[in-house]
Amino acid sequence: MKNLKHFIDTNDFSRQELLDMIELSLKLKKCVNAGYYPPLMEHKNLGMIFQQSSTRTRVSFETAMEQLGGHAQYLGPGMIQLGGHETIGDTGKVLSRLVDIVMARVIEHKTVVELAKNADIPVINAMSDYNHPTQEIGDMCTIVENLPRSKRLEECKVVFVGDGTQVCASLGFITTKLGMRFVHYGPKGHQLNEEHKEIMERNCRESGGTWQVSDDRDSVRGADFIYTDVWYGLYENEMPKGERIQVFGDYQVNRELMQLGNLGCKFMHCLPATRGEDVTDEVADSDSSLCWEEAGNRLTAMRGLLVYLTRYQKKGSELGRAALKEELDDFMNSRLGE
Amino acid sequence: MKNLKHFIDTNDFSRQELLDMIELSLKLKKCVNAGYYPPLMEHKNLGMIFQQSSTRTRVSFETAMEQLGGHAQYLGPGMIQLGGHETIGDTGKVLSRLVDIVMARVIEHKTVVELAKNADIPVINAMSDYNHPTQEIGDMCTIVENLPRSKRLEECKVVFVGDGTQVCASLGFITTKLGMRFVHYGPKGHQLNEEHKEIMERNCRESGGTWQVSDDRDSVRGADFIYTDVWYGLYENEMPKGERIQVFGDYQVNRELMQLGNLGCKFMHCLPATRGEDVTDEVADSDSSLCWEEAGNRLTAMRGLLVYLTRYQKKGSELGRAALKEELDDFMNSRLGE
Amino acid sequence: MKNLKHFIDTNDFSRQELLDMIELSLKLKKCVNAGYYPPLMEHKNLGMIFQQSSTRTRVSFETAMEQLGGHAQYLGPGMIQLGGHETIGDTGKVLSRLVDIVMARVIEHKTVVELAKNADIPVINAMSDYNHPTQEIGDMCTIVENLPRSKRLEECKVVFVGDGTQVCASLGFITTKLGMRFVHYGPKGHQLNEEHKEIMERNCRESGGTWQVSDDRDSVRGADFIYTDVWYGLYENEMPKGERIQVFGDYQVNRELMQLGNLGCKFMHCLPATRGEDVTDEVADSDSSLCWEEAGNRLTAMRGLLVYLTRYQKKGSELGRAALKEELDDFMNSRLGE
Repeated sequence: MKNLKHFIDTNDFSRQELLDMIELSLKLKKCVNAGYYPPLMEHKNLGMIFQQSSTRTRVSFETAMEQLGGHAQYLGPGMIQLGGHETIGDTGKVLSRLVDIVMARVIEHKTVVELAKNADIPVINAMSDYNHPTQEIGDMCTIVENLPRSKRLEECKVVFVGDGTQVCASLGFITTKLGMRFVHYGPKGHQLNEEHKEIMERNCRESGGTWQVSDDRDSVRGADFIYTDVWYGLYENEMPKGERIQVFGDYQVNRELMQLGNLGCKFMHCLPATRGEDVTDEVADSDSSLCWEEAGNRLTAMRGLLVYLTRYQKKGSELGRAALKEELDDFMNSRLGE
Repeated sequence: MKNLKHFIDTNDFSRQELLDMIELSLKLKKCVNAGYYPPLMEHKNLGMIFQQSSTRTRVSFETAMEQLGGHAQYLGPGMIQLGGHETIGDTGKVLSRLVDIVMARVIEHKTVVELAKNADIPVINAMSDYNHPTQEIGDMCTIVENLPRSKRLEECKVVFVGDGTQVCASLGFITTKLGMRFVHYGPKGHQLNEEHKEIMERNCRESGGTWQVSDDRDSVRGADFIYTDVWYGLYENEMPKGERIQVFGDYQVNRELMQLGNLGCKFMHCLPATRGEDVTDEVADSDSSLCWEEAGNRLTAMRGLLVYLTRYQKKGSELGRAALKEELDDFMNSRLGE
Repeated sequence: MKNLKHFIDTNDFSRQELLDMIELSLKLKKCVNAGYYPPLMEHKNLGMIFQQSSTRTRVSFETAMEQLGGHAQYLGPGMIQLGGHETIGDTGKVLSRLVDIVMARVIEHKTVVELAKNADIPVINAMSDYNHPTQEIGDMCTIVENLPRSKRLEECKVVFVGDGTQVCASLGFITTKLGMRFVHYGPKGHQLNEEHKEIMERNCRESGGTWQVSDDRDSVRGADFIYTDVWYGLYENEMPKGERIQVFGDYQVNRELMQLGNLGCKFMHCLPATRGEDVTDEVADSDSSLCWEEAGNRLTAMRGLLVYLTRYQKKGSELGRAALKEELDDFMNSRLGE
């Protein structure tokens, strides 16, 4: 396929391309909410490779495909021969002949990179030990829908609190790419590393955004969005509960921490949450909490990404992108106007 | 969703509501058998949570959704994070944003209750350690289709033989609700308990039905339907084969036991059966056996329940229920009349 | 169902029937490649029973059903009660009432035979310890699409190299049935057995084909297609790596072995391959390699078989077969001609 582009890392895409994905996602959401399901994935099959369990990613991809007229195949742990009796590259070559697009939630980032290198169809990284880019697009949809009154996106401050997980890194990547103000407030030893910082620095130089990594509680002040994730680590040996309370206890998102943010500051969480650890019930279930909306916007992002990666590919050029946009606009307007 | 009603226990529904479900199920069966598949679940996704293995329930739900234009997602043991890193309530909230309806086969009844409490979409109990209400609707479809000549439903005697499983309890619930004559013929220590009896008594007071729990073989006499289930227990430690033969041996459904019933008495079994234990080959494979029809009517019931719970909810009032009935009748008649 | 025919063994079908399956498969491939998806499986559900992990068979069946307007249900190891609390026969009877067609990848051949004996719907053998007939149809599609210039099918020599696996046996069955020249070149103790030889002999007597089983390297000479499979054995205790190199080392498909074949000789492999053991990278990734096309033609064969088994059954007679052919031709021509 000419101009084939995989979705492995948002840093592979320009600011405009990411904004296009977000816009497309929100447009499709509007359609579906209005009861119109554009059949943009009709007759298309998505292979979903999962090396780990998953609720949100799996269900949102499967629902997205079905709503758009296609189908998703769940290829869970042990169901296929990936990495067992077959090399990852060979599995990529084979799947390219049997489905139209693939997503993979992998244990090691290099697995999804290797898969993409050998595939002739778009490959989507559905979370690795390095990053979680589909989460980023969904979260940006949530932020765009909940912008503080009279603020532009670039003026917003997003603070990630706690462990420097791959969700934290991903949030840093996309906010800096889009010219926003990003802070990781976390304890030393669990902060974003030098490689992450270099990427955020490069992104900010281009976009005019800012980044900060700090264990100073004052770094939270003025936040428009406070984001957190679990403390137990999905990809390393799980830290025992006692130890993680000791390390991260001061970083719990509770009423006091939320009050460091701007008036109307919103709470975000990729979920699952460990209630009572990384966030209190009070915050998670408050009116300031966007975490359930975020879960819903996983579906929003999946629809957008699936259409972007399968439709955009066939055009590829600047001209093509414009044409696709027009096509989609016409398509949706004509139906929504009925 | 206003007027949201879950399907956790048939005792939460009125006699008329249960009759509506049965009627709707049989009407949809007629359509499908005639080659017409009403797209009443189009664009809808069903999340299927299974904490245990399942043949009939799983396949019949998945086929039902596809036949009605929708899609079912299999969320099997270990595939999602339910009850592991996420509370059941949070999983309920999240799924409410990603699918349109959920069913759960759970180990503990309280799990499906908790799920329903937190969900904004209909939740269906697809069997717990307490009851098995989707089985009840399917079995009533089978009974209605096989009523003894010139008998009304209320005149029929249904005898459950053997272990007081959740299928036994469920059969007791729905038959007494519908004003039928129910008997549990089983050995002491394995009979329906006081809570079950209270519910059946309450049901009978309203409906005019009768119930009996007994280890007297004479209680089988005059049965129109003899029903049994396995002896090994799905939810407790499995009783060793030797022990269960000793306890339940006299309760095998065989030619002699069937002859205690009325002429033309039918055999029923929710399956799987342990041939040679709870039922003989002769009975299971005889012309009197409805057990294969029952398996087929699992699908009949699932179609009816899915449509009832997603369509009925939007109306809710007495008026709404009548309107839905009319809508479905028109819809189906117009197509079947083509 | 009258005239119900299962797909358990290609030896149950006539030469003409197999050619019909191949022709139908290639015709449907042409449609799909042209962007037309004939809805020949609309509203139909395929139950996919897997007692083992699978990439190609599973994904190609699921994609085939979706492309033709139907749906496939993945019933993996431990998901249903087959062979656990329920006899295979009873599972067959139940599935006959809940889906429209079943495929089973089983550990023991007798399981799929027993399933078919009790099913009222078509059952497809998706690989057993005895044979792999869906692979055969796909491989014949690949061979037909890559016939040496100016050779008829019957003139082609197909050499299977290495362990006499069930894929080897299956290739021997279909090539001899179709009148081709088949050789199994493998070490003594791992060659096709007397039962296989009897079947091939019988096939050749009818078709005019030839067969040979040999450990003489000269038997490879003049091959048009050289085919191999892994050495580790899917169904027996896996031979340790050191031992299998000793037994099969001389049977690696490499440049030297390929050069024994005719000019333009093609390489085939059912995959997964153990690169560096049964085949070198050089051969697997060369222009002579058809192994990726073969993987794609698994999908080609599944579409053809699904339509053949569900549509053909309803007619059954010679006349019916002709009618079906005409119907399909009309159907496809009218759409492709649009």
